[in-house]
Amino acid sequence: MKFGKRLMVAVASLLVLGGAAFAVAKVKKPAKDPADKTEWIRKQVVGGQARNVILFIGDGMDDSVITAARNYWVGGNGRFAMDRMKLSGSITTYAVNELMGSEAPFYVTDSAASGTAWATGRKTGLFRISTAPFTGEAMPTIAELAQKDGYRTGNVTTDTVTGATPAVQMSHVRLRNCESPADESACGDDLKSNGGLGSIAEQAADSKMDLIFGGGLGDFEKTIPFGPDQGKTVLQSAERQGFDLVTDSAGLENYSGNKRLLGLFSGGGMTHDWTGQQATETNPQVQRCVTGARPAEQPALSTMTSRAIQILNQRSRGRKKGFFLQVEGADPDKGAHRADPCWSMGGVVALNEAVKAGIAFAKKNPRTLLIVSADHGQSGQILPFAGGSKSAVLTTNEGTNMIMGYGTTKSGDQEHSGIPVPIRASGPQAANLMGLHDQTEIFDVILRALAIKNPKKG
Amino acid sequence: MKFGKRLMVAVASLLVLGGAAFAVAKVKKPAKDPADKTEWIRKQVVGGQARNVILFIGDGMDDSVITAARNYWVGGNGRFAMDRMKLSGSITTYAVNELMGSEAPFYVTDSAASGTAWATGRKTGLFRISTAPFTGEAMPTIAELAQKDGYRTGNVTTDTVTGATPAVQMSHVRLRNCESPADESACGDDLKSNGGLGSIAEQAADSKMDLIFGGGLGDFEKTIPFGPDQGKTVLQSAERQGFDLVTDSAGLENYSGNKRLLGLFSGGGMTHDWTGQQATETNPQVQRCVTGARPAEQPALSTMTSRAIQILNQRSRGRKKGFFLQVEGADPDKGAHRADPCWSMGGVVALNEAVKAGIAFAKKNPRTLLIVSADHGQSGQILPFAGGSKSAVLTTNEGTNMIMGYGTTKSGDQEHSGIPVPIRASGPQAANLMGLHDQTEIFDVILRALAIKNPKKG
Repeated sequence: MKFGKRLMVAVASLLVLGGAAFAVAKVKKPAKDPADKTEWIRKQVVGGQARNVILFIGDGMDDSVITAARNYWVGGNGRFAMDRMKLSGSITTYAVNELMGSEAPFYVTDSAASGTAWATGRKTGLFRISTAPFTGEAMPTIAELAQKDGYRTGNVTTDTVTGATPAVQMSHVRLRNCESPADESACGDDLKSNGGLGSIAEQAADSKMDLIFGGGLGDFEKTIPFGPDQGKTVLQSAERQGFDLVTDSAGLENYSGNKRLLGLFSGGGMTHDWTGQQATETNPQVQRCVTGARPAEQPALSTMTSRAIQILNQRSRGRKKGFFLQVEGADPDKGAHRADPCWSMGGVVALNEAVKAGIAFAKKNPRTLLIVSADHGQSGQILPFAGGSKSAVLTTNEGTNMIMGYGTTKSGDQEHSGIPVPIRASGPQAANLMGLHDQTEIFDVILRALAIKNPKKG
Repeated sequence: MKFGKRLMVAVASLLVLGGAAFAVAKVKKPAKDPADKTEWIRKQVVGGQARNVILFIGDGMDDSVITAARNYWVGGNGRFAMDRMKLSGSITTYAVNELMGSEAPFYVTDSAASGTAWATGRKTGLFRISTAPFTGEAMPTIAELAQKDGYRTGNVTTDTVTGATPAVQMSHVRLRNCESPADESACGDDLKSNGGLGSIAEQAADSKMDLIFGGGLGDFEKTIPFGPDQGKTVLQSAERQGFDLVTDSAGLENYSGNKRLLGLFSGGGMTHDWTGQQATETNPQVQRCVTGARPAEQPALSTMTSRAIQILNQRSRGRKKGFFLQVEGADPDKGAHRADPCWSMGGVVALNEAVKAGIAFAKKNPRTLLIVSADHGQSGQILPFAGGSKSAVLTTNEGTNMIMGYGTTKSGDQEHSGIPVPIRASGPQAANLMGLHDQTEIFDVILRALAIKNPKKG
């Protein structure tokens, strides 16, 4: 019996162990390959509502200039923070060809028509700032709709704040060059004396933006010739309407008031971060970019961005709704027009630093939709040899040479291109920007994320 | 009591109804916005194993030429089938600069180094076909590894089948110009008489590919001067080793044999589908592309692709493992080198038709990984005006003009560019190609999808 009992115990043990082994075999999954990011990516595909939206725009920041900057700064196999954003796609940017008298496309846009498209969700003609093609009707912008809906709003740029890209969120004019009341011929019917809404600077002063940071103090020193603020400068008008002014890095850092904030850090556009030699038709010299060219009194794009996020977030604390912030880095475009790769690449690096500030905020505030995109392609191309109309040769940080070619014009400023621009996003609704979209869909996605009624839908 | 009982029943009913109402209220979700594709996209993010992989490569097919073709053919707001693939990203393509004697990058690749990168998972120097930089070691390709692992394999192109892009899957040479045994100086040590593996054509004949379709009959008519097939043509060698030959559309359609299949449909590269005027420095004339230029005896890329899928799928029926197929459209690149936008755009449209065949197959066979990408950027840009070194003006199908500019060289063939190329994917593991990746990661993702051990991991 003893033997029998031991046998029974042994058999029972085997059954139990066998069962356990079977159970283990049953639940065992194939070894996970840590390089398989499928699950991690799937978790990033989230819908629902966002509390905050930050839209980063690199002006003229197509994949060529991002890659040139990447090659130069962190190496061909290096990665910028924005490169690590997985939900990505491309954005078509064509404008309306108003000269054709129909909605026919003009296949290469400018920053005004492009900005209007994402700011209002509708295509328009070249040079227009948030006005409709043909009719000139003022079209509501994301910032305006967000203000009405109870969100805080901010507008940050390295350009003048009256430049096309910031302008599209807070003004409506026929021609982007109507920047101040002194631009009479560009403004035409948009002048207040002609029954219009006034120049871009005046409309910024009249706007409900919580903060506006960038260059362009000169436009705000112009005198208003008509209306309630007649004889005042645009700046005085802005102050009368509730803005405080800061004009340098220290002022921005130390501001502790609770009024709306106008930060104007240079007379015109802000100083670009990197300088170098322009591309030339003959014998381009091998060069390195000179970094740190911006004077310390002018805050970096990332500093303006961090401060904007901080202020907007503070002011929406305890409220149901957060903020919408647009951040533009203008230098990828400005450099490309001048066939100046260092100017452009420094602008990409500066924008990427600003994106880092956005990513850090979103990490702590996951109900934040981040979008990083551009408004149009530009002329610069990375080439194997210097053989085109204008070339520059740069020794990159990884110690080898990179050629940039600019071949869109023989003389004068280089032109934009009609290539789609990259878009990267994270947070609620971001997945809707994956794949190929038109830039007008950025408007739709942001409004849906903020649960704001879309005026395009009646 | 009766009353009491009725009351109790009534109370019980109310409780039940109340509970049901509560339950309904609990599961009720906010009204879905049909434009919110989040859930639909999340479902596309799938891991696991693929039975089949189809890799589509548009040679030189960057976002500029895709967009030019889109504008021309389906309109700026139109969409190609490949545009509707949501899992998308960009691929860096730089090569190794062997002249530097280190792994330093050369920022603009050619089709040989680029194809080697995705076919073998390793970067190499310009002009190399699946051989390592410096050492020249033959590196195993996806097709070779898939063959060993029991998959069927196919290689389709509109180029000669000895061209760089198809070559990288089935041969290993120092210089891509070593296409036939007659290319003695390009082949050098790769000649069989010098102890090498022979020219690309010979290695194709010696390969285990189940099918090889494209142009390049001329290379197969060359005589082999050395080895077991000495005195035979490469074609005779291929036939001895188990290939049947078809040479026209009818032959491809009607083939009913069960041998491995070599389809060689022209002496050199196949005829391109669209023709037009090259860009010129002065007075480009407004033009429309001439479509339908390919003679009917030469099958379309989409026809070769459908037939390849059909044959490979048939031959893997009842087997555990399916197939790996690479499909190249060579014309976006060939046209761009010649500053000939119609040639390029016709190539994009042809590749998109081939992609449609892949999508149709994947719909019925969801365990299929589809990848659509390119090997490098090209010179053509969509511009607002004709002011660069060479321009072409095209009236698109939507009735407005598009300018293409080519400014990478002043004379001779246009150059490649170093812009990252778009990648779109669907099916198991596809999400791992979202965002920014290097082209070598295509290799890793395909091997993981096919559950083939990755030789890079030891």
